[in-house]
Amino acid sequence: MNQSIKEYIVSINSAIEKENFGDKPQELYEPIRYIMSLGGKRMRPLLSLLSYQLYKDDLTEVIPASLAVEIFHNFTLMHDDIMDNAPLRRGKQTVHEKWNNPVAILSGDVMLVKAYQQIIQYAPTAKLTEILQKFNQCAIEVCEGQQIDMNFEEQETVHEDDYIEMIRLKTAVLLGFSLEYGGILAMDNEADQALLYQMGVNAGIGFQLMDDLLDVYADQDKFGKQVGGDIIANKKTYLLIKAKELATGKNSLELNQWLKAQDFNKEEKVTAVKSIYDQLNIKKLTEIKMNEYFEKAFKNLEDIDAPAEKKAIIKDFFNYLINREQ
Amino acid sequence: MNQSIKEYIVSINSAIEKENFGDKPQELYEPIRYIMSLGGKRMRPLLSLLSYQLYKDDLTEVIPASLAVEIFHNFTLMHDDIMDNAPLRRGKQTVHEKWNNPVAILSGDVMLVKAYQQIIQYAPTAKLTEILQKFNQCAIEVCEGQQIDMNFEEQETVHEDDYIEMIRLKTAVLLGFSLEYGGILAMDNEADQALLYQMGVNAGIGFQLMDDLLDVYADQDKFGKQVGGDIIANKKTYLLIKAKELATGKNSLELNQWLKAQDFNKEEKVTAVKSIYDQLNIKKLTEIKMNEYFEKAFKNLEDIDAPAEKKAIIKDFFNYLINREQ
Repeated sequence: MNQSIKEYIVSINSAIEKENFGDKPQELYEPIRYIMSLGGKRMRPLLSLLSYQLYKDDLTEVIPASLAVEIFHNFTLMHDDIMDNAPLRRGKQTVHEKWNNPVAILSGDVMLVKAYQQIIQYAPTAKLTEILQKFNQCAIEVCEGQQIDMNFEEQETVHEDDYIEMIRLKTAVLLGFSLEYGGILAMDNEADQALLYQMGVNAGIGFQLMDDLLDVYADQDKFGKQVGGDIIANKKTYLLIKAKELATGKNSLELNQWLKAQDFNKEEKVTAVKSIYDQLNIKKLTEIKMNEYFEKAFKNLEDIDAPAEKKAIIKDFFNYLINREQ
Repeated sequence: MNQSIKEYIVSINSAIEKENFGDKPQELYEPIRYIMSLGGKRMRPLLSLLSYQLYKDDLTEVIPASLAVEIFHNFTLMHDDIMDNAPLRRGKQTVHEKWNNPVAILSGDVMLVKAYQQIIQYAPTAKLTEILQKFNQCAIEVCEGQQIDMNFEEQETVHEDDYIEMIRLKTAVLLGFSLEYGGILAMDNEADQALLYQMGVNAGIGFQLMDDLLDVYADQDKFGKQVGGDIIANKKTYLLIKAKELATGKNSLELNQWLKAQDFNKEEKVTAVKSIYDQLNIKKLTEIKMNEYFEKAFKNLEDIDAPAEKKAIIKDFFNYLINREQ
């Protein structure tokens, strides 16, 4: 990873560590510090720094402002984990497991307010309304995406386009907003602000497709979670949606049997479904779709009016993420 | 009730009915329309109108702005009902009962964002930062109050002052903000804005003490809920807190027995605890405390620099609420 990026992440982490969030009642604030300290890539505030550095050399101002998107992201994780009954987050107990559901609901609510506080505290007054309108839109879309994702789990069939729209809402628009936010804080070129947003959305869809792929094809030694987890859980990923669309005859029959199986050997199921994916060329099809979005993102970056050496930092970062685990 | 106030409530309800909130996915927006249509006194937006009318004759602008506090209030109800496992709200199924917990969490989250949207859409740019800062503070305090209230249910003893502070946070500050919000939208006198806030907080504490009283001493025919519900549930109200503080000897023994009883006749418990309250003069003590706060609120109103006939509308409204069910 690029040296500047490493330094950016250090700055973001140090700003998060300095945040106190609040004291009393501790049941409200301890979970906020806990989830914020679990780490993660800090991708969203990093994107705000990366778009800001396209136009400004001194990042002092954007660092505290960028925490808003990290706080918002962790609010969504805290609430999503309750909804998904998730026991673990980054290898540690989730907040609702470590405390309880009411604490996770309420601490999450406070985090959403804190995200607004962070924006309001650090945005210049002249740009506040614009930033908040875009943030509101993004926040609502993220909730819509989560609800659509939950709905998909109850649906027999999900169409490819609906899946892409769901991941756009659930994960990509926040990457778009994070980049746009840094851009708005740094400059006034609306066309470039829109390109930053589009770049984030396109890259975000690509990253989610990459995550879907990695869940099946990652090297278990390098992968943080169990490879095949999505297959075991019948998660409606791009891979499964394409496979259901394309499977015929014996493949279709077999896939449906695995999807309905209540009692099965996990490894056997993963191997069998993977073999169906292979016969249907699902890996390649997903890669094509994914690369389509990455190419759109790189095209957005090209079109942005900023110094080439500054844009190269973003390009390198995306390439680092794309090649990381493949 | 004063004729203007009735008209204000009609305007608020009609503005709420016109709001669509959103369409897809319907699992997210249907619960918002549902909870917003359950009615209630619309006390918070009404307070914004009441403070606004102190200074302005045309209320067109403040009506849509005032919906923000009603949306926020209903967000807190939706999430509180999950935390409290409440089956009913205003005699109808709660959202988490009618749908499920994830839907109630997520719809609530969207409502919090919608409250911000409503403020941002209707506040003049020059006042936006100030309004949002005060709203953030209020929103966080409401969450703190809810957490402290939940903590109290696990505590053996709660001190009177801590109880007053809890109800200040959980319910009174939002009444304070609602009044202040209307004031900020109408004029620039910061001293009066502060008085409006203080009046709301003082009245809010008074109303909560009145609710505590009514739960024990209301006329069952006029009371919407079961009289004695708080006694049956061992709810730590001002009355119980005072009784535990003052009871000695036989009263103390008997009160503690009722608090620990697992299997009891509800009516018998209500009668017995009420009789202990009577021996300890709890009704009178609570009324004294309550009236202290109402008097502070009326004093705040007196100190506000606005036409007497406009202030009289607020005074009449408070008096209407205070005398309503006593």
